[in-house]
Amino acid sequence: MPARSQRTSGSVAMDDYLEQILHLIESKGYARAIDISKNLGISQASVTNMLRKLDSEGLVKHEKYRGTVLTEEGHRIAKAIIERHETLTRFLRLFGIDEETIYRDVEGMEHHVSRPTLAVIRAMADLLESRPGLLEEARAKSSDLRG
Amino acid sequence: MPARSQRTSGSVAMDDYLEQILHLIESKGYARAIDISKNLGISQASVTNMLRKLDSEGLVKHEKYRGTVLTEEGHRIAKAIIERHETLTRFLRLFGIDEETIYRDVEGMEHHVSRPTLAVIRAMADLLESRPGLLEEARAKSSDLRG
Ligand SMILES: [Mn+2]
Ligand SMILES: [Mn+2]
Repeated sequence: MPARSQRTSGSVAMDDYLEQILHLIESKGYARAIDISKNLGISQASVTNMLRKLDSEGLVKHEKYRGTVLTEEGHRIAKAIIERHETLTRFLRLFGIDEETIYRDVEGMEHHVSRPTLAVIRAMADLLESRPGLLEEARAKSSDLRG
Repeated sequence: MPARSQRTSGSVAMDDYLEQILHLIESKGYARAIDISKNLGISQASVTNMLRKLDSEGLVKHEKYRGTVLTEEGHRIAKAIIERHETLTRFLRLFGIDEETIYRDVEGMEHHVSRPTLAVIRAMADLLESRPGLLEEARAKSSDLRG
């Protein structure tokens, strides 16, 4: 069985919600529908529907006083998505690609990176960070190929 | 402006159709709706609708006797998608990830890889292929991280 099915919610939209909910909980202490709606640029009605769906899949639940919280499984998936986001960003930043392009590539790619592929990207980032000469060479090569 | 908008059709579904149409034209000489339908696992009615949409976007056209053909722009996009597919696959194969995982990751990632990011992946693949010692080290590192 390919590694992917264990790693994300299986839906790009659900992944993005879980990622955003964890960001909100970590920065503000709670995740309100109105903030999710603003950050994802999605109507509040759609957010409410998606929260219901995430609840029925066991990924979030609604708690009195605290609002929307992540279940253990939802938290695990959100952490994995954020970890992929950070690792892909760290790798691409080594090559001086503009931030807007990095952000768009990473937001798309992060939903499709299995654990083994993520390990490869992290290994390459670690290796390049520890070898300035190798990094210099890799950057020059990629600049040539970019034309 | 980020690099991405110039590179694909802007839609994962359209990318997949263009990729498939070019594969069919290269292997059989022509692309019939029934073959597209089989290869993508999509109903013929949906394929017919999508071909109409691709036509209205100037990416394919219907020619008497030859059937569906790619316009110059459609051909350019299909080639770019296939090139991304091949480069990502070549890179990941260096690390001994199983083929099914590679295929799933690549099919997802290929729609989100800008030209600069593709150049980085190609540069790393070239570098690793030309340095057996470095490749050995990178493989060991990624195996450790995979746990
Ligand atoms: Mn992200
Ligand atoms: Mn492909």
